Order: sequence, then C-alpha cells, then structure tokens
Amino acid sequence: MKLEIFPVHHIPEVRPGMDLAQLLQDAIQASGLALQSGDILVVTQKVVSKAEGRIIRLAEIEPSGFSESIARELKKDARMIEVVLRESRRIVRMRGEVLICETHHGFICANAGVDRSNVEDADSVTLLPKDPDRSAWTLARRLGCGVIITDTFGRPWREGLVDTAIGVARVPPLADYRGKPDAYGHPMNVTVLATVDALAAAAGLVMGKAESIPAALIRGFPWEESDADIRVLLRDPQKDLFL
Amino acid sequence: MKLEIFPVHHIPEVRPGMDLAQLLQDAIQASGLALQSGDILVVTQKVVSKAEGRIIRLAEIEPSGFSESIARELKKDARMIEVVLRESRRIVRMRGEVLICETHHGFICANAGVDRSNVEDADSVTLLPKDPDRSAWTLARRLGCGVIITDTFGRPWREGLVDTAIGVARVPPLADYRGKPDAYGHPMNVTVLATVDALAAAAGLVMGKAESIPAALIRGFPWEESDADIRVLLRDPQKDLFL
Repeated sequence: MKLEIFPVHHIPEVRPGMDLAQLLQDAIQASGLALQSGDILVVTQKVVSKAEGRIIRLAEIEPSGFSESIARELKKDARMIEVVLRESRRIVRMRGEVLICETHHGFICANAGVDRSNVEDADSVTLLPKDPDRSAWTLARRLGCGVIITDTFGRPWREGLVDTAIGVARVPPLADYRGKPDAYGHPMNVTVLATVDALAAAAGLVMGKAESIPAALIRGFPWEESDADIRVLLRDPQKDLFL
Repeated sequence: MKLEIFPVHHIPEVRPGMDLAQLLQDAIQASGLALQSGDILVVTQKVVSKAEGRIIRLAEIEPSGFSESIARELKKDARMIEVVLRESRRIVRMRGEVLICETHHGFICANAGVDRSNVEDADSVTLLPKDPDRSAWTLARRLGCGVIITDTFGRPWREGLVDTAIGVARVPPLADYRGKPDAYGHPMNVTVLATVDALAAAAGLVMGKAESIPAALIRGFPWEESDADIRVLLRDPQKDLFL
C-alpha cells in the first residue's frame, strides 16, 4: 500500500474571520482532489493563525523595559521581543540572535512561534493559534478527515528545520509498539513512534516555503480514530533523558 | 506534483557479506516497482549494518570494569554497555535506564545506535554502519538513485521516536532558502530545511517496525545532485542555540 502526499494549491490570501474550512474545501477541489475516507489534511500554522486573527501589528506594541533590554542584547526589534515574551511561558535559551522559548502551549521553539515571514503586511507578525488542537478539530469536523496543524521548528544537535505537529484531530499522535514482538519474535526496542511529527515532516516536503502551499493531503496512511491531543507529544521536562 | 512513498517488500533476511544492492534491486522489482529518474531509496540502518557485518555476539564481549559499573547503575547487560561505549565518542546523558551517546560519526542517540531488536539471534546486537555516507553511495552507484540511510532516533522535549537520516548519497541534506523572498516578497525567516530528515521521517511512515519493511521508495520529490555528506546536518555543539 503506497502513501501519497498531494500539495493543496489555490488557497487564497487568508484574512481574519475567513472560513478556513471552506477555503480548504474549495482549494482541495480546485487542486483536482476529493477527500476520501482515511485522508489526513496537514495545514501550516500560518493560515490557521491568519484565519483566527492571530496577527499583530508591531506599530501597536509598546515594549516593556525588559523587552527593550533583550532587544538590544539580541539586536532585534523590541516590539517583536515584546510579542515573543507575551507568547512565552519561559525562555529556554538566549544566545546569539535567537530566543528559544517555551510557549504557553508547551512547545519549545524559536521566538515562541512568532513569525514575520509570509505575512502580507511587512510590519505584522503571526502568533501560533491559541489552541491548535481545537483549530484542528474545527477543521476535522467540517471536512470529515484527520487534521494536523504544523509549524517549522529547529531541533537541538541537528541543523535545519523540520515541519512539526502543533495540533491534531482524530489522528493518534503516537504509535505504541511497546510489548509487541519484532520480526523475530523478540520484544522491540523501538517503542513509541511520533506518528504525527513524521506525517508533519512528510507533508512539509510538498509545501513550498516560498510558494503559497500551506496545506497538503496525505492518503494511504492507516490510522485509527483517536481523541488524544498534542500534549501527549510534550515530554515532562523532569523526565527528559536528553537534557 | 504529488509525492509517492512505496514500501519495498520482499527483502529477505540479510546476512553479513550479502549483496544488499542486489537484494534491494530484486525486492523493488518483486514489489512491482521499477526505479525511475529522481527516485530516492530510503533504507534503514538495520539491513545495511547486517550486510556489512556490523553485528556483535554479546557472548564474545568482555566488559570493562567501567562498563560493569555503568551496567549496575542502569540495570543493563554489561556486555551491551561495553559495546555502546566502544561505539561512543562521549556520553551525553546518563539518566534512568537510558544512555544518550554521541557516536564516532557525531550522531546523538540512545545507546550509540547499538540495537537488539530485529536481529535474528537474540544474543546479538547491531551497530550503526561504520560510514553511512559511504554505504549510501555504494547503493546509489549500483542502483542509480538517490539513497538515504536512516535510524529511529528520540528527540529532546518531544515524546516518540522519528526516523532520521544518518547517511546520504546524491540528495542534498539541506534546502537553503536564505535570502529568498517569501510569497509577499519579504525575506524569509524559515531559512534552512533539513530535507533528508523530512524524507527519512516520511519513509518511516510505510516502513513497519514489526513487519520486515526496511526500505521505501520516494517518488516525486524534486532534488538536484549533491555530494554533500550527512555531517552538514550535525550542528557544532558550540553553536547549538537549543542547549
């Protein structure tokens, strides 16, 4: 059984208040596709945030003294830093020109997911959706498919960014092989796979960063209905063996 | 343009000295596939290591005093620890029952990639290939396609494992968007994407862990010839903003 990943073209500029489910539905059709049972729609955070009005005009931001100070240190726009801090539960690292934050959702990423690129107005930034799981469920209910919302994250130790899941509806975030035998009947060492992160990365391969392809359709991946949310992917810092 | 990912079935039990390129060639054909220009073959470390004889019988290992001591601490087989230490340049973390190591190649992963699962003999373990890029190039030259060799790695902060590239031939490891404009003509913040890690994760979606599917064929991903090796993905620890 092969896996297919289709880019979803023809998504127009998304503005606050637009009906994203309808836009995606139309774009899927315009791309010559029709949703089938078992399909998973992967949508980048950018269009979800825009539809939900999670856009901030920097001109309207009054930076705090702390933001001004960090901005000088990092040679950044203090208003941008102010927005990043508002979106952060804690600063994980501050080094060079990058601010690694833990967002209020618990994601650890650069600038708490606040992003300047692919926004129409050069003076505006997008924030991550307030509740990406809820955003995913809204789309999943309307479209009748599995939904994953992604952002492009960096990683420790390895160069380069990879599209990563920040919200999920219906698709199980993890595939648990614990206790199952391997091909030789021995218990497997590989235990729990981060399925939605692999699906997010796979979809990222057809979602051009420079082009306007903010969604992809994955067909042929077997999954069972789940109501688990993305938090199952967030490791308790106390239990993090890597850090 | 859609992306297709085909599982490669019919790969027999791989033993040291076997001609892996021929086995893969035959398996691709037996799976009803034929290699096309631009195809990328993703192969798990396990079969590469087996073909290259990177298997160790634990009965033949004499653990050092240090290995014995760590084994007691971690409640592990001292012979296994001995093999892990031999494969390691340094121990990154030691906590609970897990040993996170930096391998001699520079990969940071549990047990330095030494693995007990999916090995015929329950008393044997596999090591990572000595030079996964060279292994990838050998296959790429014989098969005439791009090749990525993968292992299943854990990650900081996030639960679940994801298939990750440890060797590459012909396919560019990174896609560099620096300086390129986004859809609105503004410079992009998303700069460098870890293409081969995304391809590895995508292939992992069709490579069953319990079943014997150690390879997948990716079709429809555009790439340009590259001779860059996997080391471009390994971040200089001094420059790691995340840690």
